[in-house]
Amino acid sequence: MTAKAKPFINPDFLLDTKAARELYHGYAEDMPIIDYHCHLPPAEIAEDKRWDDIADVWLGGDHYKWRQMRSNGFEERLCSGRGKDGSASGWEKFEAFAKTMERMVKNPLFDWSHLELARYFGVTERLCGASAKRIYEKCNRELGKKWFSARGLMKKSKVAVVCTTDDPVDSLEHHIAIAKKPFGTQIRPAWRSDKASKVENLEAWNGWIDRLSAASGIEIGTIDDFRRAMKKRHDFFAANGCVVSDYGITEIFAAPYTETELKSIFKKARAGKTALTPAEALKFKSAWLFEGLRMDAESDWTAQLHYNCLRDLNTAMFRQMGPDTGFDSIGDWSVTESLARLFDRLEMEDRLPRLILYSLNPKDNEMLATVMGCFQKAPCRGKIQLGAAWWFLDQKDGMRKQIEALAALGSLGNFVGMLTDSRSFLSYTRHEYFRRLLCQKLGAEVEKGEIPRDLKWLGGIVADISFRNANEYFKFGVQ
Amino acid sequence: MTAKAKPFINPDFLLDTKAARELYHGYAEDMPIIDYHCHLPPAEIAEDKRWDDIADVWLGGDHYKWRQMRSNGFEERLCSGRGKDGSASGWEKFEAFAKTMERMVKNPLFDWSHLELARYFGVTERLCGASAKRIYEKCNRELGKKWFSARGLMKKSKVAVVCTTDDPVDSLEHHIAIAKKPFGTQIRPAWRSDKASKVENLEAWNGWIDRLSAASGIEIGTIDDFRRAMKKRHDFFAANGCVVSDYGITEIFAAPYTETELKSIFKKARAGKTALTPAEALKFKSAWLFEGLRMDAESDWTAQLHYNCLRDLNTAMFRQMGPDTGFDSIGDWSVTESLARLFDRLEMEDRLPRLILYSLNPKDNEMLATVMGCFQKAPCRGKIQLGAAWWFLDQKDGMRKQIEALAALGSLGNFVGMLTDSRSFLSYTRHEYFRRLLCQKLGAEVEKGEIPRDLKWLGGIVADISFRNANEYFKFGVQ
Amino acid sequence: MTAKAKPFINPDFLLDTKAARELYHGYAEDMPIIDYHCHLPPAEIAEDKRWDDIADVWLGGDHYKWRQMRSNGFEERLCSGRGKDGSASGWEKFEAFAKTMERMVKNPLFDWSHLELARYFGVTERLCGASAKRIYEKCNRELGKKWFSARGLMKKSKVAVVCTTDDPVDSLEHHIAIAKKPFGTQIRPAWRSDKASKVENLEAWNGWIDRLSAASGIEIGTIDDFRRAMKKRHDFFAANGCVVSDYGITEIFAAPYTETELKSIFKKARAGKTALTPAEALKFKSAWLFEGLRMDAESDWTAQLHYNCLRDLNTAMFRQMGPDTGFDSIGDWSVTESLARLFDRLEMEDRLPRLILYSLNPKDNEMLATVMGCFQKAPCRGKIQLGAAWWFLDQKDGMRKQIEALAALGSLGNFVGMLTDSRSFLSYTRHEYFRRLLCQKLGAEVEKGEIPRDLKWLGGIVADISFRNANEYFKFGVQ
Repeated sequence: MTAKAKPFINPDFLLDTKAARELYHGYAEDMPIIDYHCHLPPAEIAEDKRWDDIADVWLGGDHYKWRQMRSNGFEERLCSGRGKDGSASGWEKFEAFAKTMERMVKNPLFDWSHLELARYFGVTERLCGASAKRIYEKCNRELGKKWFSARGLMKKSKVAVVCTTDDPVDSLEHHIAIAKKPFGTQIRPAWRSDKASKVENLEAWNGWIDRLSAASGIEIGTIDDFRRAMKKRHDFFAANGCVVSDYGITEIFAAPYTETELKSIFKKARAGKTALTPAEALKFKSAWLFEGLRMDAESDWTAQLHYNCLRDLNTAMFRQMGPDTGFDSIGDWSVTESLARLFDRLEMEDRLPRLILYSLNPKDNEMLATVMGCFQKAPCRGKIQLGAAWWFLDQKDGMRKQIEALAALGSLGNFVGMLTDSRSFLSYTRHEYFRRLLCQKLGAEVEKGEIPRDLKWLGGIVADISFRNANEYFKFGVQ
Repeated sequence: MTAKAKPFINPDFLLDTKAARELYHGYAEDMPIIDYHCHLPPAEIAEDKRWDDIADVWLGGDHYKWRQMRSNGFEERLCSGRGKDGSASGWEKFEAFAKTMERMVKNPLFDWSHLELARYFGVTERLCGASAKRIYEKCNRELGKKWFSARGLMKKSKVAVVCTTDDPVDSLEHHIAIAKKPFGTQIRPAWRSDKASKVENLEAWNGWIDRLSAASGIEIGTIDDFRRAMKKRHDFFAANGCVVSDYGITEIFAAPYTETELKSIFKKARAGKTALTPAEALKFKSAWLFEGLRMDAESDWTAQLHYNCLRDLNTAMFRQMGPDTGFDSIGDWSVTESLARLFDRLEMEDRLPRLILYSLNPKDNEMLATVMGCFQKAPCRGKIQLGAAWWFLDQKDGMRKQIEALAALGSLGNFVGMLTDSRSFLSYTRHEYFRRLLCQKLGAEVEKGEIPRDLKWLGGIVADISFRNANEYFKFGVQ
Repeated sequence: MTAKAKPFINPDFLLDTKAARELYHGYAEDMPIIDYHCHLPPAEIAEDKRWDDIADVWLGGDHYKWRQMRSNGFEERLCSGRGKDGSASGWEKFEAFAKTMERMVKNPLFDWSHLELARYFGVTERLCGASAKRIYEKCNRELGKKWFSARGLMKKSKVAVVCTTDDPVDSLEHHIAIAKKPFGTQIRPAWRSDKASKVENLEAWNGWIDRLSAASGIEIGTIDDFRRAMKKRHDFFAANGCVVSDYGITEIFAAPYTETELKSIFKKARAGKTALTPAEALKFKSAWLFEGLRMDAESDWTAQLHYNCLRDLNTAMFRQMGPDTGFDSIGDWSVTESLARLFDRLEMEDRLPRLILYSLNPKDNEMLATVMGCFQKAPCRGKIQLGAAWWFLDQKDGMRKQIEALAALGSLGNFVGMLTDSRSFLSYTRHEYFRRLLCQKLGAEVEKGEIPRDLKWLGGIVADISFRNANEYFKFGVQ
């Protein structure tokens, strides 16, 4: 077989053994997608958004790509287009990205981009400076086709459920609008209450508390007002289909505190005149992580903890561009003791929710898989989960390490599987990528005699991880 | 070859290259087993224990299995049988475990259980809900056979030496009884003095000190009394064949302290009225780790340090079930500086014993392999050892990482190899598992040209690691 | 093919796929070497040093080998020859090392030593006790050949550039002498100013400040004098071809301080009467790391940070042998926050130099690759680099992990590649080793369909990493 005869993205992409091919094509490929955590804008689903320039789709908001382009020496106008010197044209940006791709062998963006080109645009040649123009024009033609819209992409990708990421003060108007005229995909909100505990910046925090007050119709002067307001919004989210919460934190907050301290810290913060001390801020964050998780348990939700992430490292660029623009990193906090303390305290009250743990640092995989093993509890199967490889780790090596740690220290068969965590409607290929990788790994081990050659049994596990476990765990009821 | 023709556990299990097969069958398979660290009850060896229900053997005390069953949603009565709601029958528990196995692909319990079924019960089909009854009955029939006893299993597994784990206050009556009528396996006690430094719970600690006083015949009021009592017991253990000690700790205790401080801390603890401060407790622990290791060196023993383990995370379950019931995790302390300080201080007095280092966190492998390289010393070959992958890490990925780090940063050829760390007489298959994995790894690298294809030389290394190194290192004198 | 027909080191060593062989032989093998960080003594280059005993070459100063020999039970007289009991003969040491090699399967020294034997001495049999005498004599004969000298080895190895490691107080006399009569290899100094901030030992530090004073002709009483002297030496280095600096540190120093504090800390240190407090020392170290890097940026140099190394752990041996004798280890400090603070502060002043980050702890790879991604900046391609696997990690597993993390989280195509970090003229084979490993890895992934089978494109990346990227990044202008 020559290179010409077999493009990079072909039906057996990553499936280098017979067992892998049988597992993927027989048990994974046709499964619906449950995307239980993403950052898609609900408005774009409601309006069934369309695009006319692949450069907008790919480079309009994707800070993964911007980082790579910067590291290849391209100026901000060619990356985010948000630099001091304005923005380049769509074509210029696309070409810069195409040239960047030439140096990104083995990078997930390389694989993801080629998967997206193949699956949604019918392009199978390698993207590089020389092919950029041809591919750019082809993609833009495809974007004009009738099916090519937000919902069209979901349909093509067999997406059964999407959970977005929403602020407790959000009106959920788009979710409500969609619910009135449902289509083939469940669109659910998810509770992301991080702003409630960002007390380092009291001005922004008080502004957010004011919005919470408005959204809940509760005047907020004391911590108990705050609690009632949060609970009211939590119930509102639940009433609109929310079953998932999400906490994005640095280290695990689990400092001891008293109710008296909390009351006075809240009062001081709400007054907004004097900054909290680091110890006070930590107490408040610890309280609200605990109380948020307890509230999730009481509503029978699943909570997600995303930690070991350090954000906005580059102040010069932050001042220019704001958050979520590609200046974040993996952190290396040691959290075993605080994580154990947090879970133990919740479990003592029988209020530990179903929970998915994600660390941004791969060194934590084994530790997490054993901490969670101490809090598994009947009758739930896989109550505490080691989350899929996240953000920077959402690539071959990261996924393989997560699968390996989970299988060896937890129970791979109970894994709820992949999510996109993405802002783009093209990212559903990440589910395909994950499934192929899972089948590649299992298949290779079957061939080496490390796993019994019982493909029906193993295929069942693959189908569970691809779709059925998540459907059962989150109680989505997809048929 | 079809799946039917070749069961999962077959003579070439894990041996997927020709070189691997030659190494294993030629140099590893027939080697005796030296199990220099385990938790077998000496009484059961003395009485040559027998069983009549595989559920008792497998699920009577194995918290590895209980954890997995809990994470698969089974109630405590089906796991440990120690729940608030009593215990299920043997068959019910076995069936629950068989169903758990269906989801545990790639988990070490999956491999170990099938190895035990094949080696000791002649069962080679996959254990699952459908096969459970058949396998349960077959196993119970096998248990009735004459050879199937504690000592019978040791004989069948070619076990040359066993070191148990014993409390300094233990009478060693069973070891003494066995020594009077020796059989084919050396049964030696090992010194595990952890209770001597658990000063966080003064009531329990003082109770233990009272038992130490009784065992040693020395009234213990001061730290010097304590030292004399410990030394007397240490000598008693040595006189009864002990050559190994073991320290199970969280982080490495190496805080500075003075003799005056120690004296007063001991007095305060012995009075039992006021809890020690954390700083006082740490000083005491640091002193007794240092003094214990020094005592080991003076007796020409080998010490073992097991660290980075956090125990009893789940208070609710601890109150119900006590320790060692499956609620422990990997820790993530940073220990390089304290470990270096501890070793340096011992070496300054020329009292660093032969020592085996085990961290429960795989991120420590490379660090440990280089710290130990700073304290190797002639004439001992491999004086400080990177211990075999331990507890949660005692699985393919953990073993491979340990082998890789040791080979790259230390000297694989000097490795003293595997141990079971187990409470079960069926666990000798872990030695087989380790040897197969070692041969698989070396064989694969021979085939890729990464290791010279000189199987006689390489086979010698395999035989050394399987048996000869440990025999020489611990001076067991097995012929 | 039989074992006899194909020696361990053969033309396709490590190249176990067709793609790997095509990549290596077609794009890597013939590339010149840029060795941008090593510890070769400039005097030995200037005098074109020769040797007459392979034992001197291999065991005269190589603490990697001494560590291994100690761990195999050999006394110091047979390792460094610097023990209390004097030195053994060259042959005795060589034989001890040959016996050590028997147990070092999979250790980098095993591979490096056999590569050096094959490339420079024409020896392809395995080194062991039995072959030692034959190989010893053959090597010593080869050493007598005319071409076998410092410069001859560089020529044979196609070394285009060498950067040595030099103290700011160094006269650079040998570099100047070489520059007057250049040969085929650029020999450049590199700035290693660690002694400027070793304020823990005030006597040694003041002695060094006195030498700095003499070298710069500036009397040093205040911190501003110190700054001027350092700047003068920095300019002197630049004038003599230096474009690279290097910082060897434990953790990342980034404590806050004020100019007033610095002034008084310097004054106190210079007085030399009272030891600095740890907090004072940390402030001073933080200041000088920051100011050194800023100076590097202003001179358009590339800085290197080598951290997470703990040195001289074994006091007993340190007193006997001094530093750099094989008693150092990997450290496990958590540095994300301090690293981010340091880079951010430099970037705020637009004074972050091109910089290569090396951690001695492999757990840091992913974290570093993401921190550096926050500070990439046009127009430089790959401005901040994840350094090649360093020291203890300079082996297969370490290299593979570095390549994997860099490719997944940064941009492999921009990597400036390998360096020797060595004190020996025989170490250029490490570049070959790295290139083979890189091609082995890429080739295997091509064969599995994980990388497009476009060997011209991939070969270009291999050639870039082997030579062209470094040439461009450091602006060496090699043709």
